[in-house]
Amino acid sequence: MYVDGTPKTSIWYDPQKPFSFNIIDQRKLPFSFEIIEISSSEDAFLAIKDMWVRGAPLIGVTAAFGMYLAVAENPDSIQSINERAEYLKKARPTAVNLEYGIKRVLDVLQEENTGSRNKEKALDSALKLREEEISRSEKIGDHGLEILKRLYNKKSAARLNILTHCNAGWLACVDYGTALAPIYKAHEAGIPIHVYVDETRPRNQGARLTAWELEKQGISHSVIPDNTGGLLMQKGMVDAVIVGSDRTSIKGDVINKIGTYLKALAAKDNKVPFYVALPTSTIDINMKDAFAEAVIEQRHDDEVRMIEGWTGSHTENVQIIASESPVLNYGFDITPSTLVTGLITEEGLCEANEPSIRKFLNL
Amino acid sequence: MYVDGTPKTSIWYDPQKPFSFNIIDQRKLPFSFEIIEISSSEDAFLAIKDMWVRGAPLIGVTAAFGMYLAVAENPDSIQSINERAEYLKKARPTAVNLEYGIKRVLDVLQEENTGSRNKEKALDSALKLREEEISRSEKIGDHGLEILKRLYNKKSAARLNILTHCNAGWLACVDYGTALAPIYKAHEAGIPIHVYVDETRPRNQGARLTAWELEKQGISHSVIPDNTGGLLMQKGMVDAVIVGSDRTSIKGDVINKIGTYLKALAAKDNKVPFYVALPTSTIDINMKDAFAEAVIEQRHDDEVRMIEGWTGSHTENVQIIASESPVLNYGFDITPSTLVTGLITEEGLCEANEPSIRKFLNL
Repeated sequence: MYVDGTPKTSIWYDPQKPFSFNIIDQRKLPFSFEIIEISSSEDAFLAIKDMWVRGAPLIGVTAAFGMYLAVAENPDSIQSINERAEYLKKARPTAVNLEYGIKRVLDVLQEENTGSRNKEKALDSALKLREEEISRSEKIGDHGLEILKRLYNKKSAARLNILTHCNAGWLACVDYGTALAPIYKAHEAGIPIHVYVDETRPRNQGARLTAWELEKQGISHSVIPDNTGGLLMQKGMVDAVIVGSDRTSIKGDVINKIGTYLKALAAKDNKVPFYVALPTSTIDINMKDAFAEAVIEQRHDDEVRMIEGWTGSHTENVQIIASESPVLNYGFDITPSTLVTGLITEEGLCEANEPSIRKFLNL
Repeated sequence: MYVDGTPKTSIWYDPQKPFSFNIIDQRKLPFSFEIIEISSSEDAFLAIKDMWVRGAPLIGVTAAFGMYLAVAENPDSIQSINERAEYLKKARPTAVNLEYGIKRVLDVLQEENTGSRNKEKALDSALKLREEEISRSEKIGDHGLEILKRLYNKKSAARLNILTHCNAGWLACVDYGTALAPIYKAHEAGIPIHVYVDETRPRNQGARLTAWELEKQGISHSVIPDNTGGLLMQKGMVDAVIVGSDRTSIKGDVINKIGTYLKALAAKDNKVPFYVALPTSTIDINMKDAFAEAVIEQRHDDEVRMIEGWTGSHTENVQIIASESPVLNYGFDITPSTLVTGLITEEGLCEANEPSIRKFLNL
């Protein structure tokens, strides 16, 4: 995607600086656009742990490049490389893609090889994973585009209105994104599109990241409080909802950022199609009953109690809930499959129920 | 209700200072508790216009005391008093209670009376309206208490969990409130109660005002992002939802703070009772179809884009959405009567449908 006219991805390798890779400091957006050159496996660990990068696919690719740096730092010792892998895994222990990204690099290393050959293989592996993520996002975008084309063609009004929650854009992936990929593809295809962006309390990823992505791409959008989507659907102002997913059960129940479920209920009540865009790797074929099995992460109070904003000259954290009042901060909710119109994956569209998913995945 | 052990209401008259009345500066809560003595009709106008006070019943009582001050300022001229009434009405033109509070005072004035007699009558009228509001809230509380008692008695767990949205407490009324009145009554009756308080973006009345009220009353509560309520209901953590209403149609469709509808959908989906607590005056018997007739107020962008917080030494406004991204800010949504378990009024409980409401109001 573009930032001020220049093509950008969320993570890239510059052959001119062979012992490093580059990321966007996502903590600073939208108030400041800063690139960080990561030149040690320790910095890669910090980038993941302290959320300079976030989003499952991007965490995976960052971990792979982090492993490349670990190999480059000590190319002849498989023992040291394995230790570094264990260290990197601890950056965000619950992220499935983190382990996957590390494993992808470890799998290509061979004990009998020389360090220089291992370095080359590790770099190739990280670069390949990055390309795969871009390709997956593009395919999700292409399949989603078909849906948006149909919706736009049957609509008489001038523009297509999509509501999205949180950030499932290129900043969460490498390029295009998941939920935003069909929107970018529709924009590229000349469909006039408007995106209602849920602020997404408490971390405000919609207001901070999705809005920034759309603005840089020149896509019409409005940031709305999370409370607003129901009214917009009542008023016929939304043609479809598209969200991402952190994990989806074999039955098609969707675990995603807290608040997703409320939008799905409103979509159902107002006959608005509700799509979930996700790589097939996000479907957990071992999770039978999301409601019984999913552990919903409780996060720190301060994510709700404090907020970062721009004073005019710098960002500042201010307190918006009195210290005397307790806070409860859950990260995710579960949207039952009955509220989901369809899953948009890199392999095509799939209905959100167990028989369809099993058939789709050849299980 | 209590503030630090002292009984307080949101507005009161002190006979020691006969040409004034007192309010709490609600803009400063929860970070600072400040009382303002209003000693001119002009200050009463500002108090309403600039939201030192808010909440329909409180606006009405403030307007009545403002009219008392207008009479006191120029007791012999009915013409000047009428001009002042028109002036006060402009403070918040859409507030029904504002006109009502002014009319209550005008109705008792008589042209042939002396100024001193008019002053006395105006003060009596304002004091009487204030007492009526307290009584109405208490009765709503008593009727709601019966519901909460039943819910608590059929529940085996140790505490009753109520979710509320926005602020419909004593700060919005004079004492007790509407949605919070049953909660205060239940607390007084010794029912162990916990309140999940929706933050209520964009103005955060839940986080700022409801949480403060509950904390001062010693009632267990948690502030939650507006996105969280659905998950809590999925997890069985909510026994009932109680909200207020700005206007309810003769069919029982409820216009209330934006986001109410989403909680009502989640309540229905999880078989959680959803109650609306309101004075019968809030039922608009002339509104047949809320969805067709209600004009949903669009408010200023900055309510969403900017946020006020505490820096540790003072409050500061910071920007949380980039200037480049447009914002959409609607004030209310409409909860269809089919999602409403019942209306809790000062006259008792009423089902939310036209035949029941007509019978209840003797129409």
